[in-house]
Amino acid sequence: MPTQVGLIGLGAMGLGMAGSLRRAGHAPFVFDLRSEVAQKFAGAGGAGCGTACGSVADLAAACDVVVSVVVNAQQTEAVLFGDGGCAAHMKAGSVFVMCSTVDPNWSVRTAQRLQYMGLLFLDSPISGGAAKAASAQMTIMSSGPAEAYDKCGVFLDAMAAKVYRLGADAGAASKVKIINQLLAGVHIAAAAEAMALGLREGVDPDALYEVITHSAGNSWMFENRMAHVLAGDYTPLSAVDIFVKDLGLVLDLARASKFPLPLSSTAHQMFMQASTAGHATEDDSAVIKIFPGIQLPAPKV
Amino acid sequence: MPTQVGLIGLGAMGLGMAGSLRRAGHAPFVFDLRSEVAQKFAGAGGAGCGTACGSVADLAAACDVVVSVVVNAQQTEAVLFGDGGCAAHMKAGSVFVMCSTVDPNWSVRTAQRLQYMGLLFLDSPISGGAAKAASAQMTIMSSGPAEAYDKCGVFLDAMAAKVYRLGADAGAASKVKIINQLLAGVHIAAAAEAMALGLREGVDPDALYEVITHSAGNSWMFENRMAHVLAGDYTPLSAVDIFVKDLGLVLDLARASKFPLPLSSTAHQMFMQASTAGHATEDDSAVIKIFPGIQLPAPKV
Repeated sequence: MPTQVGLIGLGAMGLGMAGSLRRAGHAPFVFDLRSEVAQKFAGAGGAGCGTACGSVADLAAACDVVVSVVVNAQQTEAVLFGDGGCAAHMKAGSVFVMCSTVDPNWSVRTAQRLQYMGLLFLDSPISGGAAKAASAQMTIMSSGPAEAYDKCGVFLDAMAAKVYRLGADAGAASKVKIINQLLAGVHIAAAAEAMALGLREGVDPDALYEVITHSAGNSWMFENRMAHVLAGDYTPLSAVDIFVKDLGLVLDLARASKFPLPLSSTAHQMFMQASTAGHATEDDSAVIKIFPGIQLPAPKV
Repeated sequence: MPTQVGLIGLGAMGLGMAGSLRRAGHAPFVFDLRSEVAQKFAGAGGAGCGTACGSVADLAAACDVVVSVVVNAQQTEAVLFGDGGCAAHMKAGSVFVMCSTVDPNWSVRTAQRLQYMGLLFLDSPISGGAAKAASAQMTIMSSGPAEAYDKCGVFLDAMAAKVYRLGADAGAASKVKIINQLLAGVHIAAAAEAMALGLREGVDPDALYEVITHSAGNSWMFENRMAHVLAGDYTPLSAVDIFVKDLGLVLDLARASKFPLPLSSTAHQMFMQASTAGHATEDDSAVIKIFPGIQLPAPKV
């Protein structure tokens, strides 16, 4: 029997990843709380289309590899250990591929818990956004036992352009993902602070963008997010509250070993200020709205 | 008579810029407080080699465009208005090209002061480092009156791969440079904070570098400076105290209009902590040494 893959959570990332599995010939079992989304994905059914499952338990029982693409650790707990959860229905030796951004210490505990049940855990956070997920161009940061990779490696490669293998320890991949979020969050807030100072000082914002993106002050996030500010477009691609959450995870991780993070804690305060001022669900570049005494570029007509 | 150019300050940047002028056929007059450096540059003399001057006054009297490449506003004040300074010896209508990183409000005042004396001021901070200065690949951010550009534009183009023209106002270019330094300083401190957390958490630092430099958390400074940390090499390319100074300028500018900069002020504290802990003249990536409870990579043999 070939190894069967299933995917739980057909959101912005998961739907693209399920599509990548299908294009690679691994017709996946899929589940989403919104059953119509899973039905739509599987379509008319038939060879190679994939199969919509009515429950997590059904999917778990049918698959050797379960890819979980839900929002956070709390939802992953529900998927694994809730009523009719995966863990109780997966076959011994199956692999649970955990793609959420979580506290690495939670990953370690969860891997142990599954190990006691005869199941394998792959710490496997993802990055790149919905467009890259849809085109199998996203990145996977992963860690876990060789036995898990033997079973799920082919599926990881089908979903991502780059699969980093960061060792055998559960938590190692989540640590790298958390550190990426530290930098991403600080860089968005720094980009906002820099652009805000420019506006305060009467610098032409388009000229500032042009110079900075060709200078040593550039970051991936400055280049990406300040384009939203210049366009006056705060349609959320990733929302302010995502960084309230993710920088919170960064600080939780460091606090567990009493490690100081001066910039991360400052940036976290900035995102919380933006969130509570009414910008929680706007694009994360809306953190610039915390700065007083400036006129932001108006939306382009 | 062709327009004659002179350059004051043959340090890491100025020496390369003088060489670029010479290669472009504009044999420059040069001055440095270390007369042997100027003598060595001019060499045996002869057509096209350039001329070493014994004083700033001599250079000012001989040139229509004076390029000043000294450390800060205080040294520029001395060059312009000190005993035997430029301003008293430059011909009416000559251009002073100010290449230091300074408080933009100081640039505005200095431009006015020179205007009263019948001289033109070009606000003209530079970026790119010594290697790019030597190969005419550096960047110039400039602003000033069209009349100044008419006289010095050909020399700017000879020294830099990219000359940004940011309007007629003195101070406009220095504002953009200061904002670049805001981002550069915060990004170095953030890179150090991220790498420090990785080391604290037992993440392999080389793997972390590999993932981050291919992810949305990347910045120009992370990629450049964390290579020094991985190599355990804190030989100063740019020192900790440069960012004590430059983030100080950032905060001075903002304070003048009571504008808050939460991340810049935090990063400034981090560089001051590193400086006073004994790392003032080490590479700016040594800001990572403020983090306790971690083992930094040893120097590579």
